[in-house]
Amino acid sequence: MRTAVLGASGLVGRKMLTLLEDCSWLSGDPVLLTSARSAGTEISFRGRNLTCREVSAEDFAGVDLALFSAGGGTSRQWAPIAAAAGCVVVDNSSAWRMDPLVPLVVPEINGQLAKSQPGIIANPNCSTIQIVMAVSPLDKVFGVKECHVTTLQAISGAGQAAVQEILQQTRDFPEDSNSAGFFPRPMAYNVLPAIGAKTEFGGYEEETKVLHEMRRIMDRKDDLHITCTATRVPVLDGHSAAIRVVCEKAITPQKALAVLEKVPGVIVTADPHDFHTAREIAGNNDVYVGRVRQDPGCERSLLMWVVADNLLKGAAWNAVQIAGVVAGEKRR
Amino acid sequence: MRTAVLGASGLVGRKMLTLLEDCSWLSGDPVLLTSARSAGTEISFRGRNLTCREVSAEDFAGVDLALFSAGGGTSRQWAPIAAAAGCVVVDNSSAWRMDPLVPLVVPEINGQLAKSQPGIIANPNCSTIQIVMAVSPLDKVFGVKECHVTTLQAISGAGQAAVQEILQQTRDFPEDSNSAGFFPRPMAYNVLPAIGAKTEFGGYEEETKVLHEMRRIMDRKDDLHITCTATRVPVLDGHSAAIRVVCEKAITPQKALAVLEKVPGVIVTADPHDFHTAREIAGNNDVYVGRVRQDPGCERSLLMWVVADNLLKGAAWNAVQIAGVVAGEKRR
Repeated sequence: MRTAVLGASGLVGRKMLTLLEDCSWLSGDPVLLTSARSAGTEISFRGRNLTCREVSAEDFAGVDLALFSAGGGTSRQWAPIAAAAGCVVVDNSSAWRMDPLVPLVVPEINGQLAKSQPGIIANPNCSTIQIVMAVSPLDKVFGVKECHVTTLQAISGAGQAAVQEILQQTRDFPEDSNSAGFFPRPMAYNVLPAIGAKTEFGGYEEETKVLHEMRRIMDRKDDLHITCTATRVPVLDGHSAAIRVVCEKAITPQKALAVLEKVPGVIVTADPHDFHTAREIAGNNDVYVGRVRQDPGCERSLLMWVVADNLLKGAAWNAVQIAGVVAGEKRR
Repeated sequence: MRTAVLGASGLVGRKMLTLLEDCSWLSGDPVLLTSARSAGTEISFRGRNLTCREVSAEDFAGVDLALFSAGGGTSRQWAPIAAAAGCVVVDNSSAWRMDPLVPLVVPEINGQLAKSQPGIIANPNCSTIQIVMAVSPLDKVFGVKECHVTTLQAISGAGQAAVQEILQQTRDFPEDSNSAGFFPRPMAYNVLPAIGAKTEFGGYEEETKVLHEMRRIMDRKDDLHITCTATRVPVLDGHSAAIRVVCEKAITPQKALAVLEKVPGVIVTADPHDFHTAREIAGNNDVYVGRVRQDPGCERSLLMWVVADNLLKGAAWNAVQIAGVVAGEKRR
């Protein structure tokens, strides 16, 4: 599979390249594409330096698969061009996620949708992926009726410049300016319950994404009652989510663990007091499910603490997994 | 009211003294009591330095009111001695909170319980206070059936040495040791879903306190269904809580705001997208309720973001308010 990465110099793009180094289906070097601004950036791949170039329509002609991680606007512009050139696009932006013609894929949950090889496949929102990795397997056995989530999300979800900003703000604390570059309020030693633009019903984009994308991936409608409060916390890499599910059937931690420990890509901690933390699991591809405990007020309800690296399973790794499914189909 | 402060040199004790400077009911200088270790510490009060001395039984003889903020063990030892000496004890530890003979008081909610002037009055847990300030007024009008909370709690709740530790760990990041003094895992740029000792059903102490203390303050039994996931975040002062309530009656943000804006000590933000953050409100006595929005899946359910300074309304201010109620009664 001749492969291109659009947005190759970004945080997620670089993670994609690192993961591609281990992909046996990759044919030759990946083509590294960026905006004009980042063209010329050199990135090491399998021990050699490759140079990013500005994306153009010709780039997709000789490419079988393109991993996009360059924002919604860029994706809306270039994904149709790449697809028309015969390229399968795996897109990490939110541009296509709710398009009924574009599958929204988490390989462990609905990977079969990537096998039809359409032009564009959407990679879900980072928080959505880790939540759905824990909740969808429970849905299939116990019938999830409600899912209530509070996320505690890492700074790296806002890009590498935001990471540099929080590190600098924290060094300058308490004298850091309130001018707020990447965040609407001072972020050092603070928590912000607002991620993305304002949406309906007092929500924010991140919360709305979780709601709509979870239902789409789980093939459910509004009979799946979801609420989400999405917060940004001073963590560099790794999102955490406090999740409460209410099921149709009675559920216990033991029953839930028996289901979850069979899910590829999920690591469970059996002790209901035990958990992983964002900082500990950063750099790993898996989703970590801990503190699986009974809601003491309801035999159909369970609480969980779910942690994953937002740049890996939440973005680059899920996209590279999708690419692997496409590659596997093309080989058949 | 001749007043003593036990634990005067701690984070909360010092806040109590600052607040006492403005209390007209205070008679003379407060007596500053500490452990032997901190005896001799000088603390400024109304412009003069007062010296802490090691607590002894004689200290309570000439005192009408004692504010305790010195941990559960110290409280269990000294509160009965102070009460036997005729002193009203307002205790900030968890030692007496579930004692049926000891009222558990948030003045705006159940302040009348402090008027009976028993020997000991308990100050609730920090998180409990700010949650109950928002939820109890709604309960009285709409009948709260369920309350599901995720807390994001500040480091200062673990004391001033913990604050110094996180500042140092953050400066040293990523080279900080994992030896973990005050927290079970590295805390810099991390989130820990574990506060206090392990309790039943996979819970931690902080979560169990919220459950039991909320029910006690709201005079409810287990028909009030509560779940809590309590997390520690890299914030110095100010706890945040993402709260979902489910009521008996239909509720809207407008109806809820109309109730909450009448509650003394509560500041509401009417815009459902708007909110306060921990860092912004640190140093203020009030409880800030923002992001009051409808649960899109239920007309009886509401989401809120509640923030307060854990050392003030969560500890010192609530205790000094209780002392004020006691003082007002004694004057009558």
